[in-house]
Amino acid sequence: MKTQQFVVIGLGRFGSSLALELIDLGYEVLGIDKNEEVVSNMSEYLTHAVVADATDEEVLKSLGIRNFDCGIVAIGDDIQMSILAAILLKDLGVRTVVAKAISILHGRALGKLGVDRVIFPERDMGIRVAHQLVTPNLLDYIELSKEYSIVEMTVPQTLDGKTLSEVNTRAKFGCSIVALHREGKVIVAPTAMDQLHAGDIMVIIGSNSNIDRFESEAVNVN
Amino acid sequence: MKTQQFVVIGLGRFGSSLALELIDLGYEVLGIDKNEEVVSNMSEYLTHAVVADATDEEVLKSLGIRNFDCGIVAIGDDIQMSILAAILLKDLGVRTVVAKAISILHGRALGKLGVDRVIFPERDMGIRVAHQLVTPNLLDYIELSKEYSIVEMTVPQTLDGKTLSEVNTRAKFGCSIVALHREGKVIVAPTAMDQLHAGDIMVIIGSNSNIDRFESEAVNVN
Amino acid sequence: MKTQQFVVIGLGRFGSSLALELIDLGYEVLGIDKNEEVVSNMSEYLTHAVVADATDEEVLKSLGIRNFDCGIVAIGDDIQMSILAAILLKDLGVRTVVAKAISILHGRALGKLGVDRVIFPERDMGIRVAHQLVTPNLLDYIELSKEYSIVEMTVPQTLDGKTLSEVNTRAKFGCSIVALHREGKVIVAPTAMDQLHAGDIMVIIGSNSNIDRFESEAVNVN
Amino acid sequence: MKTQQFVVIGLGRFGSSLALELIDLGYEVLGIDKNEEVVSNMSEYLTHAVVADATDEEVLKSLGIRNFDCGIVAIGDDIQMSILAAILLKDLGVRTVVAKAISILHGRALGKLGVDRVIFPERDMGIRVAHQLVTPNLLDYIELSKEYSIVEMTVPQTLDGKTLSEVNTRAKFGCSIVALHREGKVIVAPTAMDQLHAGDIMVIIGSNSNIDRFESEAVNVN
Amino acid sequence: MKTQQFVVIGLGRFGSSLALELIDLGYEVLGIDKNEEVVSNMSEYLTHAVVADATDEEVLKSLGIRNFDCGIVAIGDDIQMSILAAILLKDLGVRTVVAKAISILHGRALGKLGVDRVIFPERDMGIRVAHQLVTPNLLDYIELSKEYSIVEMTVPQTLDGKTLSEVNTRAKFGCSIVALHREGKVIVAPTAMDQLHAGDIMVIIGSNSNIDRFESEAVNVN
Amino acid sequence: MKTQQFVVIGLGRFGSSLALELIDLGYEVLGIDKNEEVVSNMSEYLTHAVVADATDEEVLKSLGIRNFDCGIVAIGDDIQMSILAAILLKDLGVRTVVAKAISILHGRALGKLGVDRVIFPERDMGIRVAHQLVTPNLLDYIELSKEYSIVEMTVPQTLDGKTLSEVNTRAKFGCSIVALHREGKVIVAPTAMDQLHAGDIMVIIGSNSNIDRFESEAVNVN
Amino acid sequence: MKTQQFVVIGLGRFGSSLALELIDLGYEVLGIDKNEEVVSNMSEYLTHAVVADATDEEVLKSLGIRNFDCGIVAIGDDIQMSILAAILLKDLGVRTVVAKAISILHGRALGKLGVDRVIFPERDMGIRVAHQLVTPNLLDYIELSKEYSIVEMTVPQTLDGKTLSEVNTRAKFGCSIVALHREGKVIVAPTAMDQLHAGDIMVIIGSNSNIDRFESEAVNVN
Amino acid sequence: MKTQQFVVIGLGRFGSSLALELIDLGYEVLGIDKNEEVVSNMSEYLTHAVVADATDEEVLKSLGIRNFDCGIVAIGDDIQMSILAAILLKDLGVRTVVAKAISILHGRALGKLGVDRVIFPERDMGIRVAHQLVTPNLLDYIELSKEYSIVEMTVPQTLDGKTLSEVNTRAKFGCSIVALHREGKVIVAPTAMDQLHAGDIMVIIGSNSNIDRFESEAVNVN
Repeated sequence: MKTQQFVVIGLGRFGSSLALELIDLGYEVLGIDKNEEVVSNMSEYLTHAVVADATDEEVLKSLGIRNFDCGIVAIGDDIQMSILAAILLKDLGVRTVVAKAISILHGRALGKLGVDRVIFPERDMGIRVAHQLVTPNLLDYIELSKEYSIVEMTVPQTLDGKTLSEVNTRAKFGCSIVALHREGKVIVAPTAMDQLHAGDIMVIIGSNSNIDRFESEAVNVN
Repeated sequence: MKTQQFVVIGLGRFGSSLALELIDLGYEVLGIDKNEEVVSNMSEYLTHAVVADATDEEVLKSLGIRNFDCGIVAIGDDIQMSILAAILLKDLGVRTVVAKAISILHGRALGKLGVDRVIFPERDMGIRVAHQLVTPNLLDYIELSKEYSIVEMTVPQTLDGKTLSEVNTRAKFGCSIVALHREGKVIVAPTAMDQLHAGDIMVIIGSNSNIDRFESEAVNVN
Repeated sequence: MKTQQFVVIGLGRFGSSLALELIDLGYEVLGIDKNEEVVSNMSEYLTHAVVADATDEEVLKSLGIRNFDCGIVAIGDDIQMSILAAILLKDLGVRTVVAKAISILHGRALGKLGVDRVIFPERDMGIRVAHQLVTPNLLDYIELSKEYSIVEMTVPQTLDGKTLSEVNTRAKFGCSIVALHREGKVIVAPTAMDQLHAGDIMVIIGSNSNIDRFESEAVNVN
Repeated sequence: MKTQQFVVIGLGRFGSSLALELIDLGYEVLGIDKNEEVVSNMSEYLTHAVVADATDEEVLKSLGIRNFDCGIVAIGDDIQMSILAAILLKDLGVRTVVAKAISILHGRALGKLGVDRVIFPERDMGIRVAHQLVTPNLLDYIELSKEYSIVEMTVPQTLDGKTLSEVNTRAKFGCSIVALHREGKVIVAPTAMDQLHAGDIMVIIGSNSNIDRFESEAVNVN
Repeated sequence: MKTQQFVVIGLGRFGSSLALELIDLGYEVLGIDKNEEVVSNMSEYLTHAVVADATDEEVLKSLGIRNFDCGIVAIGDDIQMSILAAILLKDLGVRTVVAKAISILHGRALGKLGVDRVIFPERDMGIRVAHQLVTPNLLDYIELSKEYSIVEMTVPQTLDGKTLSEVNTRAKFGCSIVALHREGKVIVAPTAMDQLHAGDIMVIIGSNSNIDRFESEAVNVN
Repeated sequence: MKTQQFVVIGLGRFGSSLALELIDLGYEVLGIDKNEEVVSNMSEYLTHAVVADATDEEVLKSLGIRNFDCGIVAIGDDIQMSILAAILLKDLGVRTVVAKAISILHGRALGKLGVDRVIFPERDMGIRVAHQLVTPNLLDYIELSKEYSIVEMTVPQTLDGKTLSEVNTRAKFGCSIVALHREGKVIVAPTAMDQLHAGDIMVIIGSNSNIDRFESEAVNVN
Repeated sequence: MKTQQFVVIGLGRFGSSLALELIDLGYEVLGIDKNEEVVSNMSEYLTHAVVADATDEEVLKSLGIRNFDCGIVAIGDDIQMSILAAILLKDLGVRTVVAKAISILHGRALGKLGVDRVIFPERDMGIRVAHQLVTPNLLDYIELSKEYSIVEMTVPQTLDGKTLSEVNTRAKFGCSIVALHREGKVIVAPTAMDQLHAGDIMVIIGSNSNIDRFESEAVNVN
Repeated sequence: MKTQQFVVIGLGRFGSSLALELIDLGYEVLGIDKNEEVVSNMSEYLTHAVVADATDEEVLKSLGIRNFDCGIVAIGDDIQMSILAAILLKDLGVRTVVAKAISILHGRALGKLGVDRVIFPERDMGIRVAHQLVTPNLLDYIELSKEYSIVEMTVPQTLDGKTLSEVNTRAKFGCSIVALHREGKVIVAPTAMDQLHAGDIMVIIGSNSNIDRFESEAVNVN
C-alpha cells in the first residue's frame, strides 16, 4: 500500500471511476457521498466509504480530512456544494485540492478559492473524442504543444510488410515513428530495417500538419 | 472546409465541446438538441443547430440525416433517448455512429444495437485524472498496452543541466526519452549529449513499472 | 405442475394477467416488480413473487434467472427499463424472451436487441375491438391472412330453425360454417341437415368480404 | 364510406389503434383527446380530431355527439374522467357506449352506469399471450367454450408431406383440421388426401385437452 | 345507545362534523379515512375509527360494512374514490347510502349508481348564507315551497312591547307568528295579547313576498 | 334591482353558490377570483366578475370595493389569503364583512380581525345532514334553542286520513302542528278538523324529545 | 440565570440568532420549530428546544407556554403559520408577543391581532446597510429623529494628531464629538485638548446634514 | 443627484429595502432581478430596474456594470447564484462589492472570493432585537466595544421632573447622559440643571454593566 492518501467527494460516474483507479494504482481512498445507495455500492471497493454531507465542517473534521494528502471534489452538478466543499478541504489543510467544474464560471470560482487544479472532464473528453473521430486510425494522442503531438495509430493494410526506411516518414512527411507495439512487445526507437505489420501500433511524433498529411496520404489511402 | 460531415445529438457539456472541436478542426457539424436555449447558444458556432426531438424519425429524415458521415449521440442522462436516437441514426444509414454511455449496461445495449463506438467520457476522464494525481509531474500519457506507456513529464529541477547520457534512463531505469519539448520546439530522438532544462517537457516510453521507478527515484526526489 | 418455467418482469395489468393465466395453465411463474405493494398483492397467486430491480444484473443472477425457459418483459411505460431488462434476460441465457412494446420505435429496439417476440397489447386489442364494434354479432375471430378469417358469431333470430342447407352460406356467400357451438357442446363440421338455433354460436370461415356480406345480409337484417 | 359513425374519446395507444382500424374498415371516426399534441398527430388520419374535455357536457353537445352511433371511452388511466365521459355519452343519447376499464371495480362502475360493453384490453391481451407462450406453434385461437377452442397452428417439419389421413387427428387425438392456409390460399374442409406442408397454417377444432395432446405429441416432438 | 349504525367514509370537515353530530345524537359511528393523522384525531370521539382504503372491497368486508344501516360517503374532492366507495357500499348491502357531490356531473353519477341521497354541502350552504345576508334579522328558515317559508327572526327594538294584535302580521302582511321563543321558553301559537320583547325570537310563516314585506316595513325600519 | 351591493371573494363551490343565490334574490354581485377559468365561467351570471388578487390593496381600491355594502370572503382552503383579504375589506370600509373559516383557529383569527360574521359551511352542513339521517321523514328543521325545534316532516301513510284532533299531538306528545303544506298550498294554524294526507308536509313545533317521541311512535311505525 | 423567560417560535436565521443572543445575555429560552434537524442543531445551545407545530393549541399548552414572559414569532415565510401562532400566544396569556413580518399587510394583520411589536428584519437591515454604504467611515448609527442622529465613525488619517479644539466640530460643522473609543477605553465627553488618533472611533451627535458635511469635508477628504 | 452609483442584485425584502433607502439618500440605483414581477414592482422607484440573470457575464457587461461604484449582491437563498454574481462583479471591475450571506460557510466563500464586505442581515437583526427585548425602554443602541455601548432610552415616569444632577448617573451608575431628545429638539451635552421629562429620549454612554444597573434600578422600577 502506497502512503499517499486520497479523499474523493462525490462518487458519481467521474468520481467513482477516479476513486477505483486510485485503488487499482495502490493508494488508499476515502469516498464520500450523500447518497446512501451510491456509498453502499462503492464500499466494498474503496478503503473507506461514508455517507456524509461534505459541506458540514464538523463532519469533515470528524472524518480526519486534514490528514489526507489530496482531496478531489468530484461533485456532479451542484455548483454550490462543489464550492463549499472545496473551501472546507482547503481550510482544513488538505495539501492538494482538485475539483471538477461544469462551467467556465464555476471553474473561475474554484480557482479564486485556491483550488490547485480545476478539471473539466466532459469538455476535455469531448475534445479528445473529436480528434479520434476525424482520424479513424488514431487510438490516442498527446498534445505536446499547439503544433506538435505524439499520436498512437494502427498500422494499416497498405503499409503491411514495409520497412521503416521504405515508409520513410521523416523524409516524406517530416514526422518520426518513435516506437512500435506488436503483440504486447514494445520496440523503442525502431531501426530503418524494422518492418511494419498491419495491426501493429505505431507511435509517431511530429507537427500536427505533418502527421495529418502522413495519415491521409499513407495510412488512410484506398 | 473538409468534406466529412458530422451530426451531434445532444449539446450538453460533452456534446458541445466535441462539436466545437470538430468545427475547429475544419468540419461541418449539425447540432441537435431539444432544448431551445442550448441550441440558440450554440447556433453561432456550428454550421447548423436545430431544436428537434432526435427520437422522431420523420424529423431526422427531414433534416437529411442520412447524408451525414458520422453521428454522435451525446445525450446526457436519458438512456431511453440515447438508445432510440442511436437506432434511428443506424437505420437512416449514417455510416458511423458513436454514442456516449453512462453505465456498463447502457453501453452494452448500444453495442448490441450496432453502435460503432461507445464512449464513457466521465469514466475515462476519471481514470486519466487518477494517473495525473499520483504522478504530479505527469502531464499526459498514452497507454500502449496494459504494461507499456508513453508519458509526458515536466523536467524537474533535480535534472536541470544534465545530459541524457548522465541521466541514462535506458540503463538505469529501462525506459527511453524519445522526445524533448522546449519552448515550443520539439526535439525528436534526442542524442546522449542533449541537455535537460528544468521546465522542459520530456516524452518517455517504457514499461509502467520502469517509468514509475524513474519518476520516484530521479524526478520526484527531494 | 408442468416443467416449463416462466419469469414475468413487471406485474402491471398486462403482466399480472399474463402471469395468472400461466399459473392457471399449470406452469411455474416467478413474478418480479419493483413495487412492493404490487408484489405483495400477487405473491399468493404466483409460484414466487419478488421485489427487485430487473435492470440489476446481480439481482437477476441471484434469482437464478438463467434457469428459466421463458422471460416476459411486461414493464409498463418505462422504455429504458424494458430495454435494459430485455438485454439482461438474453445475456443471462433465458432461451425465449418476449417483451411488450409501447411504440414502434421501442419495438424496433427490442427486435434489434434479440428479443424473440415483441408484443403491442394495447395496439392489438384496439384492432380486435374495432372489428367487434363494426360487427355486433362477432364474438371473436382469427385473421388467417389479409383476406381470409375465421369468425365466431352468434346465430341471430332471423336464422332460427333454419338448416345449414337452407342458409347455404357456401353457395350464397362463399363462406362455410365449420362448427356449431350449442349449450357447451361443439359440433365439428356440421351437416347440411343440422339446424341453427338463435343463440347458438357458429364458426365461419371465408374471405373477409364474403363473411361481411353474409353478416350484413343474413345475420344483421331487420 | 359506411354510414355508422364512431366517436373515440382518448387517443392513447388503445384508443388510437382502435380509431385507425375503424378508419381502415371504412367508417367515420371523430377522435377526442385533451392533449393537443396527440390530437395533432392523429388529425390527418381520422375523419375529425378535436382537442376537448370530454367531461364538459356543453363541449360534447357542440360537437354533435348525440348523432354518433357508437362512442368508445378509451381514456387511459383516469377513472374519474372515464366514468364522467361515459355518463355524458349515455345521457346525450349515443346508442352504444363501449368503455375501457383498468380494474374490476372500474369495470363494475361502468356497468352500473349503463355502459353497453366494458373492455379490459391489457388483461385480455395478457391471457391471450399466455396461451401463445405455452404453445409455441400457436398463432391465434378462439375460445369457443371453457373446454373447446379453435386454434391456428403452424405445420411443423415433423408433419411435412403427410396427408390428413396419415395424421388422422380425429381418430388419434379427437380433434379436426377444418382448414388449411398455404401461401395465401385457404382450403376449407380439407379432404383426407390433402397434404400438409411444413409452414402451412392449419386450423384445428377440438377440446383443449385433445388439442394439447395433439400439439405435444404430434407437433412439438423432437 | 341507539341501535342504528353509521359508517362515515372521509373524515374531512364535512364528514367529521357529521360523524360527531351523530355521536352526539346517540348513535354508533365507524369513521374511515386513509389519512392516519385524521383518524387518530377522531378516534377518541367516534365509536371506531380506522385507517383504510374505502375502495378496497376486501378491506370493507373485513370491517363488516354489510352490517351498517347507513353509509355516508363524505370524501372531499376525489370523485373517483367517491364513486368507487359508493358502489362498494351499495354492493356490500348497506341499506342507505348517502354521498356528498362536488359537481352536478358527480351528483348525476352517484344517482345513477344507486346512491339514495346526494348532498351538495357547499352549494346548499352558499344558498342558505345568501338568504341570511340579505335579511340581517333572519336567524334560520325552512323553505316550505318555492313560495312559502317559515322564518326565525329576532324581534327588533321597533316592535318592543307591542302585542301581537298591535303588530297584526296576518292582516297587515298576510303572514302569521306561530311561535315565540324568549329566554329558553317557547310559546307555541301565541295569542293576540302576547307581547313581543326586543331580542325575542319569533317564528313566522307565510309567502316569501309577504315575509319580505313584513321584514322591510316592520322589522328593519330605522 | 335592489340597492344593496355585494362583493364575493373566491368563487369556488360555496362562493359561487352564494353569489348566484344573491343574484337570484335580485342583488348586484361583484365576483373576484384569481383563477381565470372560474371567473370566465361565472361572468355571464354575475353583475361583474374579475380576475384579481384580493390581497392586493391597490387592486381592491381600483375596483371601488369601498362602495360595497357587504363583502364575503369565500376563499377555499388558503387561510393566509382569507385573512389578508378580510383585513383589506375591513380597512377599505366595507360595512359588513363575512368570511368562511375552515378551522376553529382560522375562525378565531377572523373574529379578532373584526370580521362581522364567521361561517363554517362544511361543519354546519355536516350537523344538518346528521339530523336528517337519523329522522328519515325529516325534511328540514330550525333549532330554536338547545331543546326546542321546528321540524318539517312528511305525513306518513300511517296518519293518512286522520284529523289533527285524532292525532292530537299536543295531548299525546306535547308538540303542535303549526302548519300543513299540501300541493303548493300552505295551511297556517290548521284546525282540529283538518285532515292529514299521506305525502303532505306538516310543520311541528315542540321540544326535541317530544318531537322525537312523536316521530318514532306515530310517524315511523311499521 | 435571569428570571425573564422567552419562547422563540421558528428557528431560522433570524429566530436562531435572536435565541442565541438571549441565551448569551443570560436568559432562559425555549425554541420551537417544526423541522427536526433545525431543532436538533439548536438543542445544545438553548435551554430547551422542541419539535412542535406552533399552531396546535394543545401542543403549546402542554409546553406550558402561558408561563413565558415573552414570545417571539420568528417564523420565516409562512404568513398563515405566523398569524395563527401569534393568536395562540396572545390567547394563552403570554404577556409580550413580538412577531416578524414579511410584508406590510402581514404586519398590519399582526398588529390588529394584538401583537405587541412587529419587526421587519430584512427591511430594517436593508435601510441600515444603505446608510453604511454611502458613508464608508460609518460603523453604526442611531437615528434620534428624522433629522438628528448619533453616528459612530472611524477617525481618518487626515485628523490624526489633531485636538478636538483644532477640529472644532461644533463651530465648524454644528455637531459634537461626545465620546472617543480608543483601544477598548471609552472617553466620555472628551475635552478640547483630547487628541484624535487615526483608527480611534469617535461618537458624533448632530443633525444629519451637519454630520454629512463634517464627514465629506473633514473625514473623507483626499 | 449624488454621483456615486449603486447596482443591487436581488430585489427581495433586503435588497429592495436597501435599494429604496439609497434612492431616498439621493443616489442612482440599478436594480437587477430575474423575476419579472419583482422588477416591474420596483421599476417606478429605482433609477433603472431590469430583468436579468446576474450570473451571465455578457448580460452584466451589456448593462455597463463596470461603471458602477458599488455592487450589492442581495440574492436571497441561492448560494450558487450569490457566489457567481459576486465573482462577476469583482472581475468586471466594480470597486466595492458587498454581499449578503445566509450561512457562515457562505460568508467565508464570499470573503475568499474578494468580496469587500459580507453582511448577515437576519443574524444581525436577531441580535439587535434580542437586546431590545430584554431592555423594554431601549430604543436603539451602538455597541462601541464588547463592554461599552451607547444606548437610546425613553425617560420613564419615575424620572419625570428630575434634573440630571438629581439623577446623577455618573456618580451613582458610572454612566453619562450625553444627549436629550425632546419633541424633535436635541440637547447635546445637557447640563446638570437640565430636567428630564417622561417620554423624552436620553442617550447614555457607559459600560454595559453600568447601563444595565441604571436601567434596572432607576428606569425600570415599579
